[in-house]
Amino acid sequence: MTKVDLSGAAQFFDAAGPDFAAAAEAHRLLAQRSGPGGDFTGWLDLPQKMLSGGIKPILSAAQKIKKLGQVLLVVGIGGSYLGARAAIELLHGANHNRAEGETEVWFMGNTLSPDAINELIAVLGERDFCVNVISKSGGTLEPALGFRVAKALLERKYGRTAAKKHMFVTTDESHGILRSIADAEGYESFVIPADVGGRFSVLTPVGLLPMAVAGIDIKAVLEAANAELHELDLRSPDNPAWQYAAARQHLYRRGKSIEILASYEPSFRFFAEWWKQLYGESEGKNGIGIYPASVEYNADLHSMGQYIQDGPRTLFETVVMFDSCLTGYSVPFEMGDADGLNYLAGRDFGDIARTTAQAVRSAHIAGGVPNITVSVPRRDEAGYGALVAFFEMSCAISAYMSGVNPFDQPGVEAYKKNMFAMLKGEN
Amino acid sequence: MTKVDLSGAAQFFDAAGPDFAAAAEAHRLLAQRSGPGGDFTGWLDLPQKMLSGGIKPILSAAQKIKKLGQVLLVVGIGGSYLGARAAIELLHGANHNRAEGETEVWFMGNTLSPDAINELIAVLGERDFCVNVISKSGGTLEPALGFRVAKALLERKYGRTAAKKHMFVTTDESHGILRSIADAEGYESFVIPADVGGRFSVLTPVGLLPMAVAGIDIKAVLEAANAELHELDLRSPDNPAWQYAAARQHLYRRGKSIEILASYEPSFRFFAEWWKQLYGESEGKNGIGIYPASVEYNADLHSMGQYIQDGPRTLFETVVMFDSCLTGYSVPFEMGDADGLNYLAGRDFGDIARTTAQAVRSAHIAGGVPNITVSVPRRDEAGYGALVAFFEMSCAISAYMSGVNPFDQPGVEAYKKNMFAMLKGEN
Repeated sequence: MTKVDLSGAAQFFDAAGPDFAAAAEAHRLLAQRSGPGGDFTGWLDLPQKMLSGGIKPILSAAQKIKKLGQVLLVVGIGGSYLGARAAIELLHGANHNRAEGETEVWFMGNTLSPDAINELIAVLGERDFCVNVISKSGGTLEPALGFRVAKALLERKYGRTAAKKHMFVTTDESHGILRSIADAEGYESFVIPADVGGRFSVLTPVGLLPMAVAGIDIKAVLEAANAELHELDLRSPDNPAWQYAAARQHLYRRGKSIEILASYEPSFRFFAEWWKQLYGESEGKNGIGIYPASVEYNADLHSMGQYIQDGPRTLFETVVMFDSCLTGYSVPFEMGDADGLNYLAGRDFGDIARTTAQAVRSAHIAGGVPNITVSVPRRDEAGYGALVAFFEMSCAISAYMSGVNPFDQPGVEAYKKNMFAMLKGEN
Repeated sequence: MTKVDLSGAAQFFDAAGPDFAAAAEAHRLLAQRSGPGGDFTGWLDLPQKMLSGGIKPILSAAQKIKKLGQVLLVVGIGGSYLGARAAIELLHGANHNRAEGETEVWFMGNTLSPDAINELIAVLGERDFCVNVISKSGGTLEPALGFRVAKALLERKYGRTAAKKHMFVTTDESHGILRSIADAEGYESFVIPADVGGRFSVLTPVGLLPMAVAGIDIKAVLEAANAELHELDLRSPDNPAWQYAAARQHLYRRGKSIEILASYEPSFRFFAEWWKQLYGESEGKNGIGIYPASVEYNADLHSMGQYIQDGPRTLFETVVMFDSCLTGYSVPFEMGDADGLNYLAGRDFGDIARTTAQAVRSAHIAGGVPNITVSVPRRDEAGYGALVAFFEMSCAISAYMSGVNPFDQPGVEAYKKNMFAMLKGEN
């Protein structure tokens, strides 16, 4: 379903072009689960597994949560946070929590700012709420402290016993502090499969439970992701995942060290954040890796546009397009035409936006910025599921092509080691 | 008031260190208004000018707007958008529009997505509202179309005559389509000084009117900015603006081509967007310029943290710190200490956040990422005003040091030319 258009990048390729033989080898390593980190490739058949039996308990918990309160607080960070937020904002808009009658979904445990914590508590007010704490180990400081805060809020409101039925835990099946706590307290819990790492976990209960509470059709998301993964199993340069992976690695070797992910939909902001983690954490290691950045068009045409058009020629741009908008809006007619824009009156904003996108694309290419366009039909569950599967698949192939393990993150430990030592007064 | 700490960058300097002589020369060019773009240095004494007479009509319009409705729609893009949003989110949080009794401030005219337009109209609902349209010329397509939409909404609700008193225009004193329209229709209007460019205009009515409507003390913002500009007139390497400008130019010459602006406050997100425009648009030209990126800590320690710690050593990090938080929140005590975190019970999250920041700083420096720390006392009006003045001043000096005109943006025209031609069917 996802389509990749490399025509805006081709003029920046050298004669040999993207290395599809290397993409094929990377794909083989991935599919055989024989490359570095092969134990963390469970996401490859995850949608299929979730569809055959895994959804029911999630939908049933989502129903319970909606009945129990108007608010769900989701405690998580990194891969336990960005995927669900990306989905909810992309599909229901950044203002999803203003929709009448829907259960609000708020995220915590990803900041230590007391001001931010107090702000969220003020938003919660006196309303009934549930908590979904998400952590594979339970040992990560930010969500562990967020869990303490959320648990204390629940117990203050409902009492220690009644609070238990407001707490939902998503964690490892058998290991870690959070699993022990969930079992000891008798919280309803969900499993993060051992063979799926954080940034590839959005289609596990990690992402699916908050999405379901927000009213997203998670079956449709999974079906699209499943179909996409099947399409992307194609072993040929026609495979869109090969195209994206091979093109970006080729551009990187030719000095394009920053990739800007762009969209014309403001609701895409947190999808870009999810993508940054996926690519930055998978590829940025051993002193190499494309820097993953993002912009929101049209807004950022008037902020980052100058740099993109005229700054160092070390950028390429990947634009995610939706073939059609979900709604329409016509440019109003103005008696007198004081602003001279009546030639656009009656035209749909969606058409104008698409024309703008073409204008931007050709201006950027002419300015020396290779353009890769990734498109799906609509900004709906199917589009989201396809994009998730597409970017995950491409990412693993791209990382293998660059010679790194896509599934580890050794660098994340450095600050944690310092931090725990300092907090315990050890240095 | 703004302090710069270069101790985390010093080990990455060469023996000669940052070029303060060049900073002095850049400062001289700027102060004498004799460098390229010298006609656009009006922001240098803007706070002083606004304080002596410019505030009253803004405060009075803000009062009118608050009486007329519960919502203000601000129509603007780029420099007519990011500064006010940065201020309102930084000082009142990303959820400012949920605060009881405050007038909500929403931004439009920065997207052509019909879905986003319809989403905003749904948020507005049947409530009373005003519009503040901001554009120096009136000729920029996105806000010009946003103005049409907003005007049509107003006229549909109030009728053509009564709608006029709900419309507030911020534009050039005498030139441009929007000025003509404002005068012809009799809209209340505010002036964007001719000698202040878009990205330096936040302390004109462009930013101040929306801020005032949102309940921000604009006098305090201006006083802090004014005091900061006076402090930054110091002609010595002790000048924090010289330090920041010279350090980043030095790091750039030593291969650090990406600057990541980081904060530990989630409410800082749009301040970083404002900063990206300021630096990206001022410096990114003629094929040179540091790429301005941003992250939100702690969240992004678990997404971009791996890349920062372990990816290509082409980054440096500028962290904006607030010396103290506005509120406190203590880690709850847990009977049984199942998670093993009772050693932190009773500690304030603000203290833990500061410890984390130290741990991150030393881990990143050890990993090869130079750290510049910029700090102000508090996340309040004074802190915001000081940061705005500091970053504007440093930016102009830094751009002059790199040999470019900080005040033009020739590259922004490229896509516009294409776009208007395509929309008019000329190609």
